[in-house]
Amino acid sequence: MAQVVILGAGVMGTAFSTPLADNGHQVNLVGTHLDSDIIEEIHEARTHPRLRVRVPDQVQPYPYDRLAEAMQGAELVILGVNSLGVDWAAQRLSAVLPPDVPVLFLTKGLAGAEQSLHILPHVLREQLPEALRNRVQLAAIGGPSIAGELATRRHTCVVVSGSDKPLLDKLVGLLRTPYYHVWTNTDLLGVETCVALKNIYALAVGLAIGLLEKEGIAVNGAAMHNTAAAIFAQGLVETAYLVEQMGGRQQSVLTLPGAGDLYVTCQGGRNSRMGRLLGLGVPYSAAKRTHMPDDTIEGAELALAIGPTVADMIGAGKLAAPRLPLLQTMIKIVCADAPVDIPWDAFFVGI
Amino acid sequence: MAQVVILGAGVMGTAFSTPLADNGHQVNLVGTHLDSDIIEEIHEARTHPRLRVRVPDQVQPYPYDRLAEAMQGAELVILGVNSLGVDWAAQRLSAVLPPDVPVLFLTKGLAGAEQSLHILPHVLREQLPEALRNRVQLAAIGGPSIAGELATRRHTCVVVSGSDKPLLDKLVGLLRTPYYHVWTNTDLLGVETCVALKNIYALAVGLAIGLLEKEGIAVNGAAMHNTAAAIFAQGLVETAYLVEQMGGRQQSVLTLPGAGDLYVTCQGGRNSRMGRLLGLGVPYSAAKRTHMPDDTIEGAELALAIGPTVADMIGAGKLAAPRLPLLQTMIKIVCADAPVDIPWDAFFVGI
Repeated sequence: MAQVVILGAGVMGTAFSTPLADNGHQVNLVGTHLDSDIIEEIHEARTHPRLRVRVPDQVQPYPYDRLAEAMQGAELVILGVNSLGVDWAAQRLSAVLPPDVPVLFLTKGLAGAEQSLHILPHVLREQLPEALRNRVQLAAIGGPSIAGELATRRHTCVVVSGSDKPLLDKLVGLLRTPYYHVWTNTDLLGVETCVALKNIYALAVGLAIGLLEKEGIAVNGAAMHNTAAAIFAQGLVETAYLVEQMGGRQQSVLTLPGAGDLYVTCQGGRNSRMGRLLGLGVPYSAAKRTHMPDDTIEGAELALAIGPTVADMIGAGKLAAPRLPLLQTMIKIVCADAPVDIPWDAFFVGI
Repeated sequence: MAQVVILGAGVMGTAFSTPLADNGHQVNLVGTHLDSDIIEEIHEARTHPRLRVRVPDQVQPYPYDRLAEAMQGAELVILGVNSLGVDWAAQRLSAVLPPDVPVLFLTKGLAGAEQSLHILPHVLREQLPEALRNRVQLAAIGGPSIAGELATRRHTCVVVSGSDKPLLDKLVGLLRTPYYHVWTNTDLLGVETCVALKNIYALAVGLAIGLLEKEGIAVNGAAMHNTAAAIFAQGLVETAYLVEQMGGRQQSVLTLPGAGDLYVTCQGGRNSRMGRLLGLGVPYSAAKRTHMPDDTIEGAELALAIGPTVADMIGAGKLAAPRLPLLQTMIKIVCADAPVDIPWDAFFVGI
């Protein structure tokens, strides 16, 4: 039985307590400064407002200003903030994280800085005090995992990724249940690149929903699955290119972190809803402001986070523009309110 | 302007006439012995009963007993029969196919014989008279292409695959339109393996629909997309293994023929409908007999066509059982009416 802290009480952070609790671990679930209502509701009613399930009894809710207390005796910290919350988390953890307590990332994203892209575990590491920075062990979960399904114990398959195989094996032991199937994967760069990019490519696949709605169902009932599937495939091809550029392995693209996670992310959720609006012809900034002001749309956040850096890297010859037509299109749509114009003839080049 | 014969007037064969007609080619659409009603309806009303669109004016319908006449002046034969019709087509074409007229496969499948698996273009070749066998050029279309969407000119991306690059370039010239995007691919073995296997793995992904229906939507509305996505990823991993065993290239798995085509096939259709029934707990033979007696379910046909050979090959050490847990599960479900029991712990082994 282990003592675990989950930082971030959103749907994924909270859902992750289910397999932990089922394995008998004690979970301290610490909300961020944006999670106060959630923590209060769990405290009072034992339910999560968005996850809409009963939170397991072994989960103790904490507000963020009691993080130090929640950390007492913790053997593992799980980071469940959204991609915008990593800096905040680094700041908070700097004061309370013992150097021998590993941090497991549920948070997905990439950061762009100085003509290179960085995975979030490395972004966190850079912001920790020097004594911690060189010692803390980092790992990440990757794979198709809708939070509401994990919280209701649907069969879910993921990898736990990191460079330290004994740590990964220990994490598998903590996490694996009859419904939560966990494999180890030592390609942290590849896994983190895949699971971040899936958000922007799911946003792209979602365009087809809006394009179809705009054009209308065909006389014979035909939808636009061919269009969506081609965008899906181009997304995987670009993911493979970027994984290679990041120093990751192709096998991660073909399996749970790449194809599996992109598939599940295309089945609905916030990226798909925003994709639909964009496909309908609503400019990104208007769609965000008018229709989804309170939602974090991870695909759009990724475009905003890496858009300028990707442009710089292409300009400097560090990334090949012909290998990334869809990424560039999505960046233009999100960062510059460009209309949707899918560059079909630029797809599948150089492969 | 070319003269083209399409053999097989099912939905895919007929839909394929749309880009050809839009490019100004003359198409003779020849029904099989099972297509008499279709050919009659196109002749009388210019519509296809299942495709439910108007057939282009440049398409001339022919019954199968007028194949010789339809072949007059043909520069290309397109094979649009289902996977069960290849032997029939070989017999028919043997009498009328000039050796310099290439055959382009829309038909997808694999055959098993004498401890090895064979792609359908090679099955056809083996059955042609010797003079033809060594000369006829074979190619195939692969990629996410729902017939009803192609027939209504939705954006569709495919590869045309074969060993002769000049032929492929010529075919691209005949086929490419502003909505039908065609790339060349010289990995015929890989492409044909991918597009055949996608049917059986889409059947597997479809199980999740029935499993969900049986278990019920969760209290929080959670479906089983995690389950479906994990099966999807395992399907791709097994496809990659089989492509390697067949002598194909991994790149085909990641792109349109593999991931793209599997994605689109999971969006509905007969494999998904049968997968749902199996997931609900109906044994395959009863599901087929009671619910889908008149449908060709390509995923099930593939299991029946290669099931015994795959077992033989595993027994002889020519295929590694641990690399194919999902394929073996699906073969047992279809060939032996086995209940659905997904071997989660056997997934993602050796990768």
